[in-house]
Amino acid sequence: MQSTPVKRPGMIVHEQEPYNAEPPRAALAEHVITPVETFYGRNHGTIPRLDATSWRLRIDGLVEQPVELSLDELQTRFAHHEVTATLQCAGNRRAGLMAYRDIPGQHPWGAGATSTAVWRGVRLADVLTAAGLAPGATDIAFEAPDIAPEAEPTQAYGGSIPTIKATAPEVLLAWEMNGEPLSTAHGAPVRVVVPGFIGARSVKWVERITAQDRPSQNFFQQGAYRLLPADTDTERIQAGDGVALGPVALNSEILTPDDGEHLAAGPVVVTGYAFAGDDREVVRVDVTADGGATWVQADLEAQPSPWSWRFWHTSLHVPAGPVQITARAWDSTAAVQPEHPATVWNPKGYINNSWPTVTVTVVADNDLRDAESPEGS
Amino acid sequence: MQSTPVKRPGMIVHEQEPYNAEPPRAALAEHVITPVETFYGRNHGTIPRLDATSWRLRIDGLVEQPVELSLDELQTRFAHHEVTATLQCAGNRRAGLMAYRDIPGQHPWGAGATSTAVWRGVRLADVLTAAGLAPGATDIAFEAPDIAPEAEPTQAYGGSIPTIKATAPEVLLAWEMNGEPLSTAHGAPVRVVVPGFIGARSVKWVERITAQDRPSQNFFQQGAYRLLPADTDTERIQAGDGVALGPVALNSEILTPDDGEHLAAGPVVVTGYAFAGDDREVVRVDVTADGGATWVQADLEAQPSPWSWRFWHTSLHVPAGPVQITARAWDSTAAVQPEHPATVWNPKGYINNSWPTVTVTVVADNDLRDAESPEGS
Repeated sequence: MQSTPVKRPGMIVHEQEPYNAEPPRAALAEHVITPVETFYGRNHGTIPRLDATSWRLRIDGLVEQPVELSLDELQTRFAHHEVTATLQCAGNRRAGLMAYRDIPGQHPWGAGATSTAVWRGVRLADVLTAAGLAPGATDIAFEAPDIAPEAEPTQAYGGSIPTIKATAPEVLLAWEMNGEPLSTAHGAPVRVVVPGFIGARSVKWVERITAQDRPSQNFFQQGAYRLLPADTDTERIQAGDGVALGPVALNSEILTPDDGEHLAAGPVVVTGYAFAGDDREVVRVDVTADGGATWVQADLEAQPSPWSWRFWHTSLHVPAGPVQITARAWDSTAAVQPEHPATVWNPKGYINNSWPTVTVTVVADNDLRDAESPEGS
Repeated sequence: MQSTPVKRPGMIVHEQEPYNAEPPRAALAEHVITPVETFYGRNHGTIPRLDATSWRLRIDGLVEQPVELSLDELQTRFAHHEVTATLQCAGNRRAGLMAYRDIPGQHPWGAGATSTAVWRGVRLADVLTAAGLAPGATDIAFEAPDIAPEAEPTQAYGGSIPTIKATAPEVLLAWEMNGEPLSTAHGAPVRVVVPGFIGARSVKWVERITAQDRPSQNFFQQGAYRLLPADTDTERIQAGDGVALGPVALNSEILTPDDGEHLAAGPVVVTGYAFAGDDREVVRVDVTADGGATWVQADLEAQPSPWSWRFWHTSLHVPAGPVQITARAWDSTAAVQPEHPATVWNPKGYINNSWPTVTVTVVADNDLRDAESPEGS
């Protein structure tokens, strides 16, 4: 196992080691299926380079018969399935919370700690059936070999999902991403893909799957990725405090124009994504450029799959000068995103699903020409 | 078929014919399983009194073999199941939207257009299996005999749910409510119970179930119970506009103290309910009595079932004088209710899940004694 140098041009790198990076808004906006080189990377430890030929997956715990599978066995013993799914880091859009109130020691993720890919592999359900789930197996835990120095105590990365989700047809053990073999950075040889759940549960480089009668006791299930009340004394957090995050809350972002962009006069094309986890669907996105006095319903683009985000776009007439553009999405339960970061703020900065905003400046034609051609015309 | 006079003491009656009534907050707060006589009633037509011996249930449409069942056949051919489920009208809490901006012609439902009961019957899934669902049966439609004058054109009440929900184990054809035979007012001899979906889909007095390749074309699926944008021209609504409501959005209410109540000085006990439909769970409720400067986490009571609301309570120190108490709930996706009725407002006044508030007046001890004993002491 050794570190893999990661070089991805055009990414916003929050940390080089462990590697944590997201694409800029404009890059994310280009493709509804995110290219592998643009897909965000969220790691808690050094990226492990595993040898696919010696890699084994162990399935144990509350099962009738523990199973150990090589990659070849995994690929030949079970039917192959494909799912187009959005992964979204629980820390996505944290920067918006930090602007309201600082969150020390956490990456200031922008709009891009989320991406969508076509995943191919076998159903976790089929593998669990082969091992035979025993009664009382309420949770399925995953373990990987990447050591996370931030964990208390230091330990390899892990997490779990409820058995009812683990046995749903959309959950895969995947070795392919967008038609290519999974890259080392994204979990080769095999990763878990849990569509509709926070990205943290889609454990990369998975080596062990344990059926058990409680959630994983791993730090990243019990100590991190939990929603804590805003007034939590962060010096006194105990394992198990707050609520473990799983299904993703309704969320959205504006991808173009970019925050801070200067635009020519005329209609402004606004684009973005919206996503609702698990069995919820995005049904509507509103956009305003006048502080909410009027809202325009955006056009929703086709959703590649029930497990993916939905791109949207609209065109707004915006007066010259600086203007704030704000969006908000509704899901199929008729829920709408909460308005303020203040409502959502929490000590670890997870699940910022308050209304996204960008501030742009619309420049009168002459001014823009002047700006582009400093010599004047 | 004839009208049944309804007499329920202590209910807030919005309309006598068709009968529409909800319990006051205090009555709802008394029992986590709502007594039958306290359970809200929402009707679009005259309550039909059906003869249980001649009643038949027809299952047809995209099925291998249409089936007709008597009550006796329904009760003897299929296994019995019990589900504790909250039903919640899509118009619950509409009064809060109307206070922001009027909604003519709609009942001003308060906190009580929702109740919880123990339902007993057979699984809709088992009955559909007996008929044999044909490929392409994406939706399951229900028809009842109660004629709704408000429908355009006038028609019997109906609606539908996706097949994926209709075949889930929690969906029942029920003839029993809280251990008693279903009353005429609540759908005797048999009603549909769709836990986690808006009450409108739990069709009472069901007589026909049709498997089809599209949602019900009934007025109450295509013309009502749809979420429309706030700026909709209500003179020009077409069937199919907006979004059909199904799974219930996260919501909550304060049940005690009542809005407008005068309270003695000392800690104020605040209680209420919170509910999230479908597979979401209520994980947290916050309460504030100082306009959001500080929030207290309420104690969550045991949830009678995954398909029921959750009662909560807390105790607050409140200064003398008038004070607004506000609550907000979180669900298992880390979603929180939106703050303002303005965000949620829609032309039909559905799904008001903005933060609930009550205004109470805390009276200094002497003042309260004076108020209770007008002669003085």
